[in-house]
Amino acid sequence: MRVHVVGTGLVGTSLGLALTRHGDEVTLEDAIATHAALARDLGAGRLPGEGEALEPDLVVVATPPDVTAACVLTALDRWPSAAVTDVSSVKGAVLAALRAAGADLARYCGSHPMAGRERSGAVSGRHDLFDGRAWVVSPTDETLPEVLDLVTDVAGAVGSVVRRLPAQEHDRAVAAVSHVPQLAASLVAARLEALDEDAVALAGQGLRDVTRIAASDPGLWTQILAGNAGAVREVLEGLATDLRAVSEALAALEAGTDAPGARGTIATTIAAGNAGHARIPGKHGAAPTAYTTVRVLIPDEPGHLGRLFAHVAEIGTNIEEFHLDHGLGQPFGIAEVDVVPAAATELAEGLAARGWRIHG
Amino acid sequence: MRVHVVGTGLVGTSLGLALTRHGDEVTLEDAIATHAALARDLGAGRLPGEGEALEPDLVVVATPPDVTAACVLTALDRWPSAAVTDVSSVKGAVLAALRAAGADLARYCGSHPMAGRERSGAVSGRHDLFDGRAWVVSPTDETLPEVLDLVTDVAGAVGSVVRRLPAQEHDRAVAAVSHVPQLAASLVAARLEALDEDAVALAGQGLRDVTRIAASDPGLWTQILAGNAGAVREVLEGLATDLRAVSEALAALEAGTDAPGARGTIATTIAAGNAGHARIPGKHGAAPTAYTTVRVLIPDEPGHLGRLFAHVAEIGTNIEEFHLDHGLGQPFGIAEVDVVPAAATELAEGLAARGWRIHG
Repeated sequence: MRVHVVGTGLVGTSLGLALTRHGDEVTLEDAIATHAALARDLGAGRLPGEGEALEPDLVVVATPPDVTAACVLTALDRWPSAAVTDVSSVKGAVLAALRAAGADLARYCGSHPMAGRERSGAVSGRHDLFDGRAWVVSPTDETLPEVLDLVTDVAGAVGSVVRRLPAQEHDRAVAAVSHVPQLAASLVAARLEALDEDAVALAGQGLRDVTRIAASDPGLWTQILAGNAGAVREVLEGLATDLRAVSEALAALEAGTDAPGARGTIATTIAAGNAGHARIPGKHGAAPTAYTTVRVLIPDEPGHLGRLFAHVAEIGTNIEEFHLDHGLGQPFGIAEVDVVPAAATELAEGLAARGWRIHG
Repeated sequence: MRVHVVGTGLVGTSLGLALTRHGDEVTLEDAIATHAALARDLGAGRLPGEGEALEPDLVVVATPPDVTAACVLTALDRWPSAAVTDVSSVKGAVLAALRAAGADLARYCGSHPMAGRERSGAVSGRHDLFDGRAWVVSPTDETLPEVLDLVTDVAGAVGSVVRRLPAQEHDRAVAAVSHVPQLAASLVAARLEALDEDAVALAGQGLRDVTRIAASDPGLWTQILAGNAGAVREVLEGLATDLRAVSEALAALEAGTDAPGARGTIATTIAAGNAGHARIPGKHGAAPTAYTTVRVLIPDEPGHLGRLFAHVAEIGTNIEEFHLDHGLGQPFGIAEVDVVPAAATELAEGLAARGWRIHG
């Protein structure tokens, strides 16, 4: 399959990496030429030659939401025999803009891979970003069956699970499972801005998890939220109603009265969270956990990491992901070494035998 | 040290496991005898013999918040020469109840390890639960120095970083870094309760992270939130104000008017979340430090990381944080090497001179 990717940010680059690995022919373009060149350097595909007339089977528009409809229109026009899809987080607004512009929708099928990271840009791209994730396709009545097939094939080729949802249903769903969670993370993190240093120092893993996506790009997210304003507001209003009830219950308890029902309101809220949380399909269902983590204690002195990696190489293990963070002056850091599950025991035992402290 | 743990839930059991490993003598009790027996079976300590007169140096009350003050009073009474601490998530309410009961506060020092899990009970206990976490101690003017020392020793023995904060300041801090994040996770998860199956199926990693702690125990959290009602409500009201602003901005965008300022409100909210998130210290409790990142292209084959770290050691740079992630079979990964700003140029030049591709 010949796939042309317009926009080499996180999603476009990851798609290029995945399709290249799958054996497809991928060409890349980006409004900023150096971004496309970086994606090429990372192995996401090739840049078109000067004056080369591309003949893609499928064009994937992976630009920010605000320019998605315009880029889809351009693509339909530039490649009159290609199928065109986009991967924007919002589907209704793109479709409405295309209709308003009088686009021929036969060759267009909107889509949305439910995969992302809190970091953006080609440099954060990963070939396995889509692995085991849902990939929504939103064909209209006009979409040709062979166009839908092409988009479905691409999603399948990169390991995604295809789910068919009309644009409006998609937008209502992502308001609850993605857009409002993003806002909640940002609102919680914003409360830390003016906090004393002594207070922020008490942060634990719960706060880190709740606010991880609060590191996301404001420009991108403003486009996403504005593009899905109606559906997001509806979910947000429901959340605000629950929040007011909790706040009133806390006020009653604070007043030191008997506060009948106040504890019940709080317990009901936490219990409703339990029930909602239990509905989320687990990592092992939708997105299988690929790696096993081996945790190693690292003394905070130069040279130890070099010794660790020399030992890992000696043992013959390939590291899939590696993460270390510890602050200046802390006696120890914990290195998290992610490897394929089959290699974990050998690595842990090999490191322990070489004097490293392995952590549960 | 002889430590007696009252309450063998997640925290009490984990403490027993950690102190036993450290070589301390730990005895266990719980209002439910089978819970204490389970903690013993897991290796958290021993049960007192029938009629045995315990002589603990320190009693740690690790019961739910609602009964903490009563258990501290009992402990002060039962062991007239022991120091007593508790590990409740709320410190002001416990202290107020002790004062109201006329307790002798010389042998008492409240504390709070900033460690927990979304799962409770002895069976979820881990010896490394406290490793690298903050452990707040809240002595009063009456607390004897040797009592504070004992609590500090225990926190240090299990790998925690001790932080001293008065009870009221502690409660205000945890409202922002723990209690409101818990509520936000629950409120977001509660929105999923009535969602269509097709919609829940679109859940991605962002939602999973934001709502992980929404699986927490309603009974325990009702006690915690009720015990810190005033401070929690204050943070919650700030969050609600921000939320209303976003909701109004979305309504303006939905109305399809020009909505001057609406996008600005949303972008400001996400940006405030960025700023707040950036203040969260690294895993090991150290203050956040502005490091400079040097990005290095790494071929995906065994041995290259070892060579990289050998070169880093040769150049003489200490690595503060290190992050690498790439998937199996991808031609390149990008290693992010964080160092103190003064060392960045030398490192980048030294690595480039040794043949590494450095990426802006």
